Formats: sequence, C-alpha cells, structure tokens
Amino acid sequence: MFRQESDSVGVLNIPETAYYGVNAARAKNNFNITGELLETDFIISLAEIKKAAALANAELGMIEVNVAGAIVDAANEVIAGAFHDHFIVDPLQGGAGTSSHMNMNEVLANRAIELLGGVKGDYSIVHPIDDVNKGQSTNDVYPTAGKLTFLKKMRGLEVALERLIEVFSQKADQFKTIKKIGRTQLSDAVPLTLGDEFHAYYSVMKRNLKRLKQVKIELCTLNMGGTAIGTGITTHPQFSAKLLPILCALSGESLTIAEDLIDGTQNIEGYVALSDTLKVAAVSLSKIANDIRLLSSGPRAGIGELIIPVKQNGSSIMPGKINPVIPEIVNQCAFVVIGNNVTITMAAEGGQLELNAFEPVIFYKLLESFNLLEKSITTFVDNCLMDIVANEARCKELLEQSMYLSTSLSETVGYAEAASITKRALSSGKTIREVALEEGVSEQLMNTLV
Amino acid sequence: MFRQESDSVGVLNIPETAYYGVNAARAKNNFNITGELLETDFIISLAEIKKAAALANAELGMIEVNVAGAIVDAANEVIAGAFHDHFIVDPLQGGAGTSSHMNMNEVLANRAIELLGGVKGDYSIVHPIDDVNKGQSTNDVYPTAGKLTFLKKMRGLEVALERLIEVFSQKADQFKTIKKIGRTQLSDAVPLTLGDEFHAYYSVMKRNLKRLKQVKIELCTLNMGGTAIGTGITTHPQFSAKLLPILCALSGESLTIAEDLIDGTQNIEGYVALSDTLKVAAVSLSKIANDIRLLSSGPRAGIGELIIPVKQNGSSIMPGKINPVIPEIVNQCAFVVIGNNVTITMAAEGGQLELNAFEPVIFYKLLESFNLLEKSITTFVDNCLMDIVANEARCKELLEQSMYLSTSLSETVGYAEAASITKRALSSGKTIREVALEEGVSEQLMNTLV
Amino acid sequence: MFRQESDSVGVLNIPETAYYGVNAARAKNNFNITGELLETDFIISLAEIKKAAALANAELGMIEVNVAGAIVDAANEVIAGAFHDHFIVDPLQGGAGTSSHMNMNEVLANRAIELLGGVKGDYSIVHPIDDVNKGQSTNDVYPTAGKLTFLKKMRGLEVALERLIEVFSQKADQFKTIKKIGRTQLSDAVPLTLGDEFHAYYSVMKRNLKRLKQVKIELCTLNMGGTAIGTGITTHPQFSAKLLPILCALSGESLTIAEDLIDGTQNIEGYVALSDTLKVAAVSLSKIANDIRLLSSGPRAGIGELIIPVKQNGSSIMPGKINPVIPEIVNQCAFVVIGNNVTITMAAEGGQLELNAFEPVIFYKLLESFNLLEKSITTFVDNCLMDIVANEARCKELLEQSMYLSTSLSETVGYAEAASITKRALSSGKTIREVALEEGVSEQLMNTLV
Amino acid sequence: MFRQESDSVGVLNIPETAYYGVNAARAKNNFNITGELLETDFIISLAEIKKAAALANAELGMIEVNVAGAIVDAANEVIAGAFHDHFIVDPLQGGAGTSSHMNMNEVLANRAIELLGGVKGDYSIVHPIDDVNKGQSTNDVYPTAGKLTFLKKMRGLEVALERLIEVFSQKADQFKTIKKIGRTQLSDAVPLTLGDEFHAYYSVMKRNLKRLKQVKIELCTLNMGGTAIGTGITTHPQFSAKLLPILCALSGESLTIAEDLIDGTQNIEGYVALSDTLKVAAVSLSKIANDIRLLSSGPRAGIGELIIPVKQNGSSIMPGKINPVIPEIVNQCAFVVIGNNVTITMAAEGGQLELNAFEPVIFYKLLESFNLLEKSITTFVDNCLMDIVANEARCKELLEQSMYLSTSLSETVGYAEAASITKRALSSGKTIREVALEEGVSEQLMNTLV
Repeated sequence: MFRQESDSVGVLNIPETAYYGVNAARAKNNFNITGELLETDFIISLAEIKKAAALANAELGMIEVNVAGAIVDAANEVIAGAFHDHFIVDPLQGGAGTSSHMNMNEVLANRAIELLGGVKGDYSIVHPIDDVNKGQSTNDVYPTAGKLTFLKKMRGLEVALERLIEVFSQKADQFKTIKKIGRTQLSDAVPLTLGDEFHAYYSVMKRNLKRLKQVKIELCTLNMGGTAIGTGITTHPQFSAKLLPILCALSGESLTIAEDLIDGTQNIEGYVALSDTLKVAAVSLSKIANDIRLLSSGPRAGIGELIIPVKQNGSSIMPGKINPVIPEIVNQCAFVVIGNNVTITMAAEGGQLELNAFEPVIFYKLLESFNLLEKSITTFVDNCLMDIVANEARCKELLEQSMYLSTSLSETVGYAEAASITKRALSSGKTIREVALEEGVSEQLMNTLV
Repeated sequence: MFRQESDSVGVLNIPETAYYGVNAARAKNNFNITGELLETDFIISLAEIKKAAALANAELGMIEVNVAGAIVDAANEVIAGAFHDHFIVDPLQGGAGTSSHMNMNEVLANRAIELLGGVKGDYSIVHPIDDVNKGQSTNDVYPTAGKLTFLKKMRGLEVALERLIEVFSQKADQFKTIKKIGRTQLSDAVPLTLGDEFHAYYSVMKRNLKRLKQVKIELCTLNMGGTAIGTGITTHPQFSAKLLPILCALSGESLTIAEDLIDGTQNIEGYVALSDTLKVAAVSLSKIANDIRLLSSGPRAGIGELIIPVKQNGSSIMPGKINPVIPEIVNQCAFVVIGNNVTITMAAEGGQLELNAFEPVIFYKLLESFNLLEKSITTFVDNCLMDIVANEARCKELLEQSMYLSTSLSETVGYAEAASITKRALSSGKTIREVALEEGVSEQLMNTLV
Repeated sequence: MFRQESDSVGVLNIPETAYYGVNAARAKNNFNITGELLETDFIISLAEIKKAAALANAELGMIEVNVAGAIVDAANEVIAGAFHDHFIVDPLQGGAGTSSHMNMNEVLANRAIELLGGVKGDYSIVHPIDDVNKGQSTNDVYPTAGKLTFLKKMRGLEVALERLIEVFSQKADQFKTIKKIGRTQLSDAVPLTLGDEFHAYYSVMKRNLKRLKQVKIELCTLNMGGTAIGTGITTHPQFSAKLLPILCALSGESLTIAEDLIDGTQNIEGYVALSDTLKVAAVSLSKIANDIRLLSSGPRAGIGELIIPVKQNGSSIMPGKINPVIPEIVNQCAFVVIGNNVTITMAAEGGQLELNAFEPVIFYKLLESFNLLEKSITTFVDNCLMDIVANEARCKELLEQSMYLSTSLSETVGYAEAASITKRALSSGKTIREVALEEGVSEQLMNTLV
Repeated sequence: MFRQESDSVGVLNIPETAYYGVNAARAKNNFNITGELLETDFIISLAEIKKAAALANAELGMIEVNVAGAIVDAANEVIAGAFHDHFIVDPLQGGAGTSSHMNMNEVLANRAIELLGGVKGDYSIVHPIDDVNKGQSTNDVYPTAGKLTFLKKMRGLEVALERLIEVFSQKADQFKTIKKIGRTQLSDAVPLTLGDEFHAYYSVMKRNLKRLKQVKIELCTLNMGGTAIGTGITTHPQFSAKLLPILCALSGESLTIAEDLIDGTQNIEGYVALSDTLKVAAVSLSKIANDIRLLSSGPRAGIGELIIPVKQNGSSIMPGKINPVIPEIVNQCAFVVIGNNVTITMAAEGGQLELNAFEPVIFYKLLESFNLLEKSITTFVDNCLMDIVANEARCKELLEQSMYLSTSLSETVGYAEAASITKRALSSGKTIREVALEEGVSEQLMNTLV
C-alpha cells in the first residue's frame, strides 16, 4: 500500500494512492498547526503558474514537449478542482512556502507520470523539481501564487462592496426627505436628513472601493524569473517573458515583471499595503455598524430612529428582545481584520536579507481578512441594510425637542446671545423658539430659521 | 422530513433528524462567516453548565425531577462526544453568544425529549428556555462556558510549556561547558557558555509558565446567577450556590461567584489580561526562535554555533539547503498571537453599558491563540530543540577570534587604554593579547584574564 | 570656553561649563529624534543607582573612599534636582541606553571632580567609567533605572486610581435608589439602578488597581551585578549583595537580584507584562468613558440619564452646545496606551541573543503610557465624575416606557407567550401591562412583577 | 493685571497680556495631559485658514472690510511666527479640536482688536466667533488644518526619503562588483553582489516614496464650507468657492472641496490611510536597518560584510566595542510608527454619527510618526549609510566557503544528485567542487558554473 520516496533526510513510506510525495509528507508532520488546508483559490493559482511555466519551458526547449504536455494536463485537472485533497500541508508553515510549493510540484509530477503511463513515484518520467519546477524557485512561485490568489479574492470583495454601495445609495434616496437631528460627540447638533447619513455611508464606501482597486497595483508586479533570491539562476533568460502573457491570460489580470528582481523577492511590504487597505475599509464598516446600532437602539429607551429587520430572537431570557446581531458581526470581523494587520505588519518587518520567511502567515491572515470582510458585508447587506426602515415619527419627535435653532439664530443675534437663550431653554425645559420670543426676538425672524 | 418550529420571527422548517431548533437554524443563516464550527471543548463546557444547572434547579424545585434527569442524561451524552455535529452555528456570531447558547439549549431539550419518549420539537415535554435554560441567561452562561473552555485549554498549554522548559533545562546542562562569545546588539561582547544561553531560555519560559498559572484567577470567577445583566432576575436566590460545587466538580477547578454580578457581566477585561499573558509568552518564544535561527545560521557563511536537526528539504531550487523551518513557525504563530491580542483588546474596549456584545470574537481568537501556541511549542520541542546539537569547534573558533579580553584587561589598565588596544587589534587584524604584549602589558597579567 | 575630551572616535570640544562629556555630546548629535529630554524620575533613579554603587564599591575597597564620597555627594545633588539640564541626550536613542547612562557617569564624574577641587574633564581624579561605573554596565544599570522609575510612576498612578475608585464608590452610593432600564447590545433589557452601574465601575477599577499592584513584581527583580550580559565580569562578587539594601532604602521598595543574571539581562518581557497591565486598565477606563458619553448623550435627543458638568463651550458654531470633552480625553489616552503596547511588544520581541537593544523605546513609551493614564484619570475625576448628576426624571421616564416586565412575566406564562405579548406591545405602542391584561393575565400577577 | 471674560460656564480672569481668551484658558485647565504645545506647522495652518476665510468673507460681504483686514494682518503675524506662546492648549484634548480652534479664534480676534486700536477682550470690535470664525466650524476648520499640516510635513519627509534613496543608489553603484553569498532564512543561498542588495534598498524606498506621493490625495480634499456636520449651516453658499483658491495659494497645494460634505466631515478614514503609508515605509526601513545590523555584525564573530562608521563608544564596560546605534534608532522609530498606527486606527473606528471626536489624538500621533520617520531617516543617512564601507575580503571569504555551486550544478546533474554532493561536502568539510570531482563530475563542467 506504500511506495518509498527519499530525500536529503532519508526514506519515507508514502501511500500508494497519494499524489503528494516525500516533501509534502514531511511538512505535514512538521506543521500540525491550524488543522486547516490550503485555500482552493491558492491551489488553483499555484497550478496556473505551473501550467504557464511548463508551456514557457517547452517553448524554450527547457523540458521535453510530452513532459510539458502532461504537466499542463495535470495542472488543468487541478485547476478544475481535482486532487485538492492531496494538498495536505498546513497553510501555516515554516520554510517560506517551500512545503506548499513542493506539494504542488509533487502532485503535478505524479499525475503527469500517470498520464504518461507511469507509476506514481517514478520521477524519472516527470520530476517534481527538475521538470515541474524547471526555471522556478519557491522564492518566485510562492509569492506569485499569493498575488494571483488575492486578485481572485479581490473580485469577490469588490462584488460585495458594490452591493453595499448600491444599498446605501438606495437608502439615501429612500430616506432623503426624512429630517432629523444630527449629532456630534453624541450631543445634539443641527438637522440633516436620514438620507444624508446614508449618502455619507455610500460616499465613504465608494472611496474604499476605489482604494481597493488602486491597491491591486501592488499585486500585479511579479518576480517570476527571479528564481533563487531574484538572481534568475538556473532559469532561461527568456523564461519570464514567455511565461508572462500565458499567466496574464490564465488569470485575466494585467501582470508585469518587477524591474529589480532582488527587491521583488525580498521586499514584501506590498502585502502590508494590501492589508492596510482592507483595514481602512474595515474601519469604515465598523463605524457604520456602530452608527446603525446606535440609531436603532431602543426600542423604547434608546434613539430608535432606525428599525432594523428582525432576524432571530435576541435573548435566552428576555422575551421579545431584538438585538442588532448583524451589525455586531460586522464590528467583530473588522476587529479581526485590524488585528491581522498587526500580524502581517510584524511578519513583513521580520524579513531578513534576501527573503522574508514569514510569507505563509501573511498569506494565511490576508485570506482570513478577505473572507471575513466579504462575508460580513454580505450578511450586512442581505440581513440588515436591505430591509432597514426609518422610524419617521421618532426622527421628527427628537428633532423637535432639540435646540438646533440656536445655530441659525446666532447668525442674527450673535453667538453669545444665542448661547444664553439655549441655556435658558435647557434649564427651563422650554424650546428655543419659546425662549427667543420671550427675549424679544421677532416671530418673523424665528419663522425664517432652519 | 421536516418539523416546523416557530419563534418571534415566524415559522421555520427544521430537518426532522436535527437536534438543534429554530434559533440555531436562523443563526446559521445569519452568520456564514468563518466556515468553522464551535470548538469541542466549548461544546463540552456549555454542556457541563447545563448539567450543573439542571441538577441545581431540580434540587431547588425549579424544574421537575424527571425533566432535570433527562437534561442531565442528554448533557452527559454531549460531554461524551455525542451530537457535536448538531452545533451548527458559526463561532463568530453577533448577539453576544445567544446563538451558540440557544443551539445547546435546543440540542439538550430535543435529546431530553427523546429520552423521555417524546418527539423532537415537542417542547411541551422539555423546553429549551423554560427548562434547559431555567434560571440562566446568555449573559452568564456564555462567558462561563468561555472560562471553563480556557481552563481546559490552559492544561494543554501548560503541558507543552513544561516539556519546553524541560528540554531547555536538559540542553543547558548538556551545553554547560561549551564556552562561546556572547553578543549584545549583534556585536561581540564577552564570553559565556552555550549552556548559559539555554538556561536563560529555561528561566524566561519558567517565568512565563508562572504568569499563565497566575492569570487563571481571571477565569475562575463566574457570574452564574446573574442572569440578565447581573441582576439575577428569574433565577432562584440559591441557584448559584447550588450550582457552584457541581460545576467545580465537573470542571475540576476551584471556581467562585463574582461579588458584583453587574460588574461580572459587563466587564470582560479579564480576557484581555489572559490574552496578554499568552502574548508575553509568545514574545519570549519568538525571541528564542530568533536566537536559534541566528545561532544556527550558515552552514558556512553564518554564525553556525548551533546545528538544528534536518526535518525536510529547504529549497525547491537549491539542493542540500537546510532552513530553520521549525523556529520559523514559532515566530509566525507568535505574530498571530500578538495580532489577536489587538483584536481582543478592541473587542473588550467596545463593550457598552451592561454587556459586551463582542465576546464571540474574543473567544474565537483566544482559542486560536491557545491552539497555535500549544502546537508551535510542541513542534519546536519535538522537531527542533530535542535534537539540537552544539558546534563546539565553531564556538571555540569564534571566541578565540574575538576581542573579549579587552573587558577584563580594562580592570587593570583602565577603560581608555583597553579601548586603544582593542582599536589597534581590530585595525591590524591581531589579537588583544598580541597588541597588549606589544604595549607592555605583562604576559603574567594576560594569563590571568578571562 | 571649551575643554577637549577624547574617546575611541577622536577628540571633541565640550563647553567648559558642561558637566556632561564626550559620550553625551556625541550621542546628542547622533540622536536628534524626539526633541525631548530624559524624564526627571529617570534621572533620579539613575543617580540613586550610582550612589548605591559608589557606597558598595567603597565598602568593598573597589574605589577610594574619597572618590566614592564625592560621587555620592554629586549623586545627592542630582537626586535633589541639580544639573538636570546637563542630561542632553534624547531619551529615544540607539545603543541600548549606553548614551543616557554615560551621560550620568560623566555628569557625576565632573561634579565629583569639582567637589574634590579639580577641573571638569580631569578624569584622572574621578573617571566616568573606571570610578563612577565601577563594577557596572549599561546592561545592568539602565534596566534597573527603568524599573526604579516605573516604581516611582506607579505610586502616582495608584493615587489617581484610588481617587477614581473612591469617586465611583461615592456615586454608587449616591445613585443607589435611582432605578433605570439596563441595556445590552444597546437594546433595552431589564432594570437595575444607576448606583449598580457606578458600582460596576468601582469594581472593575478596583480589580485593575489590584492587577497593577501585582505587576510590580516584574519591576522588583534587578540584574545588578550582572554587568556585561549577566556574567558579572569585572564586578566584585559581593557587589550586588552590598548594593541591594542601599538601593532598597533609597527607593523604598523591596528589591531582589535575579537568580539567573543572563536571563535577567536579555529577557525583558516583564516590561510587556507591565505595559499590558496599563493597557487593561486603559481598556476598562475607555469602556467607562464610552458609557458616560452614551448615558449623558442629548441633551434632548439622546439617552440623557446622566448630566455631566459643563467645563467649557462645546462648539465654535453651535451656541450652548455642551460636549463630553473630559470622557473624550480618557478615550484618546486609552488609545495611546493601547498603541504603545504594540510598540513595546515589537521592541521586546526584537531582542537578540544576550541583550535587547530596544529598551530605550520601551522606556519612552511606558513613561508616556504612565503619564497619560495618570493625567487622564485625574481630569476625569476632577472635571467630570465628581460633579456628575443623575437625571432621575429621565431614568424613570425611559424605564416606564420599556418592555422590561416581559422577563419576569415569562416566569409565569413561559417564554413564548411573553415574547408574543412583547411583540404586540411593541407594534401597538402599548405597555406590557396593558397587553398582558388584554391577553388574560391577572392584574394580581402583574402587580407582583418587578 | 487681569481682564474678565465670560462664556456659558461663567466668568474667568484672563491675564491682560494674553491674546488667548476664556475658551483657551478653560481648555488648558481641562487638558493637562502631554505637557506639550501645538506644533508650529499646525498653528500656521490654522492661521492660513483664518486668513483665507477672512478674505473670502470680506469679498462676500459677510464681515466688514476693516475687520477682515485686521484679522488678515493678525494671521500674517502668526504665520510669520508671532504669538505662538499664546497657543496654550494641550494638543491632546477632548472636544474634537474645538479648544485649539477657539484658541486661534481668540488670539486672532485679540490681535486684530489691538491692530484696530482696541483693547484685548473687547470683542465688540472683532469677535472670535462672529467674525474670525464667520461661516466656519471646528467641524471643517480643524480637519482642514490637520491636512494642511500633514502636507507641510510631507515635504520634509520627502526630502529625507530622497536623500535616503540617493545614498542607496550611490552605494549600489559603489558596491556593484563586490560578489557575496546571498542568504534566505539566514541560510546560505546563491551569490549576488553587495550592490544588488543596496539596489534592492533603493528600489523599495523609491516605491515607498511613490506611495507617499499618492496618499497625498487623501489630504487634498477639504470639507470647508461644511460648517456644522457638513450641512453648511450659517455659511455663505459661495464661501468655500471663494476660500479655496486663496487656500491653494497660501499652502501651495492643489486642494479641492469634498463633493459630499456630510461624508467629508464624519469619515476620517483617510488619516488611517495616511498613517498606513507611513507605516509601510517604516516596515521597509526597519527591515533595512535589521539587514545593516546583521551584515555589520561582528567584528570578529559575526557576518561582518559591512563596516558601519563609528559614531560613539558602544559600551560603558567593554572597551572598543562598537554598536550599530544608528540602525537601532531606525528600528525603534519604526516600532513607534507601527504602534501609532494602531492608536490612529482605533480612534478612527471610534467615530460616531456626524463627527469623529478623536481627531486630536489622530493628529498628535500622526505628527509624532512624521517627525520620527523624518529624523530617523536623516540620522540614518548622515551618521551611518553615507560612510558605510564594504569588507570585501570578508565577502569573498564567506562566499568561497559556501555551498552555492550546488544550485547551478543541479542544472546538469539533477536536484537529487546535487543535494547528495552538498550533503557530503557539508559533512566532510570539503567544498562542492572537491566532492563533485570525486563523484565524477568533469572539471570542465565545474569551471562553467557560477
């Protein structure tokens, strides 16, 4: 039931049915950390690179055409979803990604061997390194796979954000005539409309979407062709030029090769910039979720200007209690994205000399941030924002009780006098209008104030 | 194939085979976030509380004895591992934990109904809230379950740490006669032994273990009996007194009830303190991993005083390259624990008034921190430290090349003269001894220096 | 006007009036970073160590008695506040504190020289290193000075916290009969008293004070006697034993010497634990400040259960607007403490081998955290909490409007029926009592509910 | 010696010589936090806005021409550096900046009063709010002043970065022929040149400079004209259109007015994006500083490929010890920038509804980050990088000892055979060349390898 494979460490039994080999098997044992497996998009991105590399190498005569063909066929199967359970290495791993990378080299080699009529493990037919990895290194393949993965993730996030922006736009329109009191520092300020508030949410998230589109530039410059530390050692001088258009076509993205491959290999601060942009979006989302929770607080002893849809019972003890459970998950996901940003920052800072060994944790946490953002936005839209309703009567009631006329009044009577009228109104329980009239302000003036 | 259940929101079809009910089903739909399920230890801890509560309520006459018995039997089954696939709610959820809590109330109710001969969903026999949740609230049950879970996790972490401390102790002993140059600020300083270095690792991790034992106090004060917001509304005045000894016995921990239950419900800064203590341990571990990577750097162009065991090939392009993959995973896990600390801090800061709605993310990230610490320590011990070897020749070679004699020389000739000798030695490529003798220091003196 | 001093780098002109020497002068030029100077408490702590060291060295015959006497006299002057403007080195510095340390050695040497009748710069009389620094190293003196400084800072913080705890206690007592609605997740829950809320603030801050007292243990273990990297090289074997009681007396603290001096020199995770404890207090304070801002929101369109004292105009445009400016500064200082915690964590993680070179930034940020915490608590007490007033009428009004009776009602009619009554009350605008009576619940029962 | 001023709170004595008034005086008392004063650039930016506003208001007939003229004259004096000691409010303040803003309104009003022949405090001549603040609000003035300040700071930072990039370029050129071993994961990899390494530093910092130039877009969109919460209440409809070109001219920047002023007032996530970009630069700088420290480690027992200039004695106990004190300050400043990023993120997340009350801490920490980055880069260039020297002999020695030939050898003999040769070389202490020849690889082949 086992075949034997060997490496520098020694000989190891590998299940006969396994497409992975000795490198993946050792790594699985070394890294029993998260209990998770490599994300599907990451597996596919790695396979896309291997396919493009095989085609480029074949064109350049670096590997035999039939070997290349078998690797391409194997990669196509992986891209289509096959053999994903043979990627057995924990995504959180030491070794700068070599283990996940070798896992892919091994799976493709073994599948290509099969396609060529051989038996898995007979690397004389197709070799994981000498063939599948020809002209490549973990130093260039692994970060490139990360970038292709995040570009895929970005599409899902953009769709979620566009839906969010659209629902804010609709609500801004729907609520545009509902006048209410604005608040600064949680204190009553001057009037605006509920539509104004939702339009501000629309505006800020549109700006965040723009930032995300811009940060993609960080992902589109690859260091393929750099091989070890960006020197290009062992690769054909035309390799990256041949590979690039294939990879652009496979990924559907406009990719380029870094001018300085040494830099492009060791400096990964671009992932920090990516994580930062996710974080800025998370900050904006969390602020909006906080607002929604505040504005819908109550139902009787809070602000209550908004009514959020009821999606589940709120309490195991208080019957009829409804809680803002959906905005709360938005906050919590934002906190995760912010914490992950610190992790990613530290990992990037910790790089040394020609390579950053900590890309695996950067990728692992970036993927979590992408997923949590997309999924929390989706439930925010579907289970909260879409069916949010204004409590118009409450908006009107609170507006009328407030002191907002003092600001426009100050234009005529001056700040000091307006402040004095406000103070008297507050202490007496009267309205600004009442006190102003008592103080001799004309009814005509008061009627013009907004 | 479905039964119908209803709640404030309306009627919902629930699979007939499901032990969960309408509350869990709605929550599953609302929170499609991480794709993960509640951790086993958390499920068991929740069940322990429910068992203890049923026993306490029965003793106080708050629920019928046969109902209590069935709940206890159902809880025992869950504690033993049954029905865990019926806990369907994402651990990252809005609603302050109500959904996971209701999931447990529903599973136990439905199982208890079955045990009493009824049909799942017939809550007239055993009711998830009126019976299983009698005298309780998510406000007290959920944080209590978190604390019991972390106490369980702490045991695993303590075992891992004790093994780590033991291996450092052994290596300190094994290396105690290997003299080498010490380094401050990466610059050659004065001699110590390799054993001294490992003893320092032993000392710092022992101190971290002590901190972890002390921080358990934060987990042992419960707010059971507080029900909603710590008021104790709906619960029997003797409930927590009856429940406490049962829960102590079940959990094997010395637990107490908070004096101020209002405080005990709303203030969860103790989890921050717990996360902080994990973080301090992670900081120490990461520093040690950094040291191990530095000291084993090379093999030819680095420091190379340590030889770490070879656990896998290091490179997909550089044959024979060995990388410090195990220390690297320790670093990365430490970065995660540090980032999670920020997430947990923000979530704790975001609590409002009588409750912190963000406990789910605090628990989710605390569990990740516990797991990653324990697992990275384990692989550090098993796959690196245990078989680490000193390169004695290299230690000796580097020590002899260094300028360390200047410090002890300064005791006799003064700092300024010793500095001058050092400067000449460095610029001429000579040793301190050679230059000192040239400068007229006696051979006798030189022979006494260490 | 200048004297010449020389070191390994070369000769430098030093102002004749300067008590500092060439080391401080070079460092001032190298580190033009913050524009700030060493904090007074830090200068005094350094001087205390130097005084204790001179006494210990004299007793052990390591330096001449008259030299020791002059150093002690000079140190006493510095402790009393003299020459502080001669500490010219930026507190944020490279070199692991050597520059600030040498600044002290130089000031004391030059002052001692003067006291012995010499001319500043004539280090043949008293030498900054060979005498003032006898048996010491930056590796032990600088961290020890940090610890003594934080112990001093702790006293001020404890006083501030005790005042805060006292004012919460008073308010808890003052408000203990004011019944109000409690809120979880910003949604109306069940009643408690305003006194209960302030008592919870009292309880949590008392717990934080306890944590701070406990974390002092991290500061009381010194590595004096370790000199370079903890080896004790060049120091007298009895040095630390002689110095310790003197330093205990000078500082008024119960200090001990680390068992493992190698560990005690390189591992500074104890400062992280200290920073963490400050952070936990900051988290609790920020949560309380958030609550105060929420509860005092309005005056007309917010919750308005609390009235905070008016300390300044709130707006440059809205007359009469009052903002919660004091709680807002508490929040902001908490954010600084939390951010500093990340800085300190990274600096501690970055230590390498026998020393952590980043203690200066750790000390700089710990001092900022101590100062901001103490000062924000002080203004919180003096300018907000002391004169905070309950709006009893508002508390009553909001309580009566709320649905809180549903929870106690559920004890009799069951959760589902109580939820249904609540739903009808909410949709119809009626009270729980009204709907319950309509549903056939007896008036007698309703009268017993709380 | 005192004049009396009054506000909503009551009457206060103000020193007759003071240009500030009651608002600043109360705020000074409320916020005794950092002990620092408003940064010069911030004072000037505020004055520029006030000057532009006076000119715009005069043109629109909103304030009298002579009053406007006096305000402009006063503002010009402040811009030129006068009266800066009358800005007495702590930069860290509650109230969303109202206090610093009122401080400016008061100073300009009182100075304008003087210029018009009046007596300070006679606000009937020029009123701080009704005149100086005409058509403005803290809600728009304070964030605008922040943005203008950061644009000023950006210029200094850009100059520092350009010098850094230039020195890296020079060193890349200077070291371009010095071949050395590259290292990944601190393990010997394949050769590159020392110039390649410095070129990578050049490349990454050039990219960081580009990011900083791009993030300026976040600072160029102002919310002037929004007044309270972005509604534009009390301001002339043409105010911002008139003010904008004046402010562009005064600041020398291309500024625009936000399309959505409600959004432009409440959402300040752009400062997070700015802080993030500073942080990414700090991450890159810290990585480079780490590399410089590693490469210059030694002098005898480290890597020692670089020789950094000696800027000060390294130790108070080890004569002749030289430490990398300048790179160490770069690391520490980076840690501060990273920690500040967390503070700023939390403050931005904490905004509520129509305003973020925490801008003061955001500004305070952004300024610290700007200053520390600029100053640490400056000392890095001047006191380290400029005079850094290659140790060519050491580069050559380490390269020749290393196993780097195995990679190019693998192209011919295959990965497995090359790995086996490497293993034998390592265990036997031989070179790759020696073992390869023994294994039958031809001398001719070996001579072609690089």
